[in-house]
Amino acid sequence: MPGDAQSDTCVLLIGAHPVRNRDLLASKLGAEFELNTWVPDDGDNALVDRLKQAEAVVAMRWTSDMPPAPNMRLLQLPGAGYDGIDFTALPDQCDVSNVYEHEIGIAEYVVAAILERCIGLRSLDATFRKGSWQDSLIVAGPPHGELSGKTVGLVGYGHIGQAVAKRLQAFDTRTIAVTRRQREPDEGLEWVGTMDRLPELLEQSDFVVLACALSPDTHHLINTETLARMKPSAYLVNVARGPVVDEDALYAALTSDGLSGAALDVWYAYPSDEEPDIRPARNPFHELPNVTMTPHLAGYTDGLWERRISTIADNLRRFRAGEELRNPIEWVGFG
Amino acid sequence: MPGDAQSDTCVLLIGAHPVRNRDLLASKLGAEFELNTWVPDDGDNALVDRLKQAEAVVAMRWTSDMPPAPNMRLLQLPGAGYDGIDFTALPDQCDVSNVYEHEIGIAEYVVAAILERCIGLRSLDATFRKGSWQDSLIVAGPPHGELSGKTVGLVGYGHIGQAVAKRLQAFDTRTIAVTRRQREPDEGLEWVGTMDRLPELLEQSDFVVLACALSPDTHHLINTETLARMKPSAYLVNVARGPVVDEDALYAALTSDGLSGAALDVWYAYPSDEEPDIRPARNPFHELPNVTMTPHLAGYTDGLWERRISTIADNLRRFRAGEELRNPIEWVGFG
Repeated sequence: MPGDAQSDTCVLLIGAHPVRNRDLLASKLGAEFELNTWVPDDGDNALVDRLKQAEAVVAMRWTSDMPPAPNMRLLQLPGAGYDGIDFTALPDQCDVSNVYEHEIGIAEYVVAAILERCIGLRSLDATFRKGSWQDSLIVAGPPHGELSGKTVGLVGYGHIGQAVAKRLQAFDTRTIAVTRRQREPDEGLEWVGTMDRLPELLEQSDFVVLACALSPDTHHLINTETLARMKPSAYLVNVARGPVVDEDALYAALTSDGLSGAALDVWYAYPSDEEPDIRPARNPFHELPNVTMTPHLAGYTDGLWERRISTIADNLRRFRAGEELRNPIEWVGFG
Repeated sequence: MPGDAQSDTCVLLIGAHPVRNRDLLASKLGAEFELNTWVPDDGDNALVDRLKQAEAVVAMRWTSDMPPAPNMRLLQLPGAGYDGIDFTALPDQCDVSNVYEHEIGIAEYVVAAILERCIGLRSLDATFRKGSWQDSLIVAGPPHGELSGKTVGLVGYGHIGQAVAKRLQAFDTRTIAVTRRQREPDEGLEWVGTMDRLPELLEQSDFVVLACALSPDTHHLINTETLARMKPSAYLVNVARGPVVDEDALYAALTSDGLSGAALDVWYAYPSDEEPDIRPARNPFHELPNVTMTPHLAGYTDGLWERRISTIADNLRRFRAGEELRNPIEWVGFG
C-alpha cells in the first residue's frame, strides 16, 4: 500500500535459471522487494547468511541439509515438478507454490515427436537428398503414415496432458487418458479414467504419452508387465520423469520388437559438476535408431522464462500483500 | 436400379495408382461396372481400343495426343491438381471431377515441418546421442523455439489451407491467408484476403505455406521481389507446385540470409523412364542444411487411397445414375 511503512520483502533466488532471470524479475516487481541471489560458487557461508534473512526463496530443490531459514514463509518453485523438494525439511508455516508455462513447449515437443514417428521426415529427407525418388507418390513407392485416426493414450492429465490433448484434437486423433483423480472428460477426449484403467489405455493406444508427476505411485509405472500390454507397433513418449519407466524393461522392449520406438526427454542420470558428461542411462539408448532422445528440454523454450517470471512476480506480490497464492502445492505425503 | 436392363458402365483406369487400386475400387462398386486398366507397358494399341469403349476414365493426365475417346463423358482425376489436364483436348460434354483426401496428410506434413523448424528435434537428438548435455534445461543451455504465438501465412485457402489452419489453431498461432476469391474468415483465422494482399502476408509471416493451385496467375508468385518482402527469419513451406516459386530466386535467398530455411515437397523436374534419377532442381538444394526436402509425398499416406477410392466409387455410381457429381471442376480457362 502507498505510504506503508512495512519493510522490504527479502527474496533469495537460488540456482542458474532464477539467478539469470533476476533483472527480468526485478523489472516486474516494485522497489519494496529486495532480490538476493545464490549460486554454488558463492560458497556455503553466503548461503547461510542469505537464508537467515530470506522471507521467500525461489529454488527448485530443498533438501534436509539446507541451512536454517527461520523467516522463510514461501518456497516458490521456478518450475513445475516438486520431486526435488523434501517437504519435511521446510520451516513450519512455509507455503510452497510452483509454476507451469512449460506445457506449451512440452505439448509442441510431444506432437512433433508423434508426427516424426508417423511421417519420418528425417529419413525421407536423407533418402531424397542422396538422389532417390523411391518414397515419392510419383513412382508409387510405399506411403508414409498418418496421425489422423490414431489412438493416443495420455498417462497424466494435468497442465501438460491437457495441452497435448488440445493439439491432438485438431488432428482428429482418438485421445484417452488416465489420471490420479476421476474427472469428467473434456471436449475431444474419448474417455478419462483413474489409474486402474491404465492396462486398458495401454492396450488401445498407438501412442502412449507419459505426462504424470513422479511419486511412489508412478515409480516404474511402465515396467515389463505394463509394457507387455502395449501394442508391439506402439510408440512411447516420456516427458514426465525417467523413473516413471523401468529403464531395463524399456531397453528390452525397444530392442526386441516389444515396442516400435520411443521419444525420451527425461532420464535416469543427470550431469553434475563431478560428472558433466554422464550418460543419461545405464543402457545404450543412444545406439538405438528407433529412439529420439533429448536432454530434458521439451518445455525449455525461448518463451518460457518471460511467462514464468511474470507468474513468479505476481505470486511474490500476492505473498507480500497476504493474498491467495497462485499454484499452491498441498503436500499431503505420498501413498 | 434392380432389374434395370441398362448395359454395364465401362471405366478405364490409367496409371500406376488407379491400376494398383483396381480391386479396392471393384469391391466398392456393383457388377454393373466394367473396370479396365491401362499402363504404358500395355502398348499404344491397347490404349486406342480401350478408350473407344470407355464412358468414364480415371486418370491424372489428359493431353492433346490422347487417342479418341468418343464415349467418354467423365474424366475422374484420382488426385486434386488438374495442371496435367488439357481441358481443350477433352471430348465435348465430358465432365471432370477431382478428389482430395490428401489434405490430411499434407496438413500433418506442414505442421511437422514447422515444428521441426521451431524445435529442431533432429539436431537436438544428434547432439545428445553423442553425449553432450549442452541443450538441456538442466545446464541452462540455449532454449529452443516455440510455435505458439507465431504468425503463419497461408497462400491458398482451399482444402489444404483449411486443414492446415485447423491444426495450427490448436497451437495458438496467428494465422492469415490469401486466396483467389474473397471470403469470410473462418474461426481461428485472423484475416483472409485476395491475392493483392500477398505482400502484406509475406511481411507479417514467420512461416509462409504455399498451398495454392499452379496457374499462370501463381507461376513464380514467389520470386526475387516477393521473397524480399519476407522476414529474413521466415521459413517457407511449399506443398503446392514447384513452379509457384522461382527456383533461382529461392536458392539465392536460402544461401544469402534472405530466408532462414524451407521445407520443399514439390519440384521443378520429375523422374521419367528415361531419367529415373533426375535431380529435382537445377540448383543443388540437396547441399543446403537449412532445407528439408522430400520427393512429392506430403499427402501420400497409408490412409489416402482407401479414402480416395471410396470417393471415386461414389462418383462413378452418381455418374451412372445421372446424379450430381462430387468435386466437379468448372474450367473457365486461365487468366
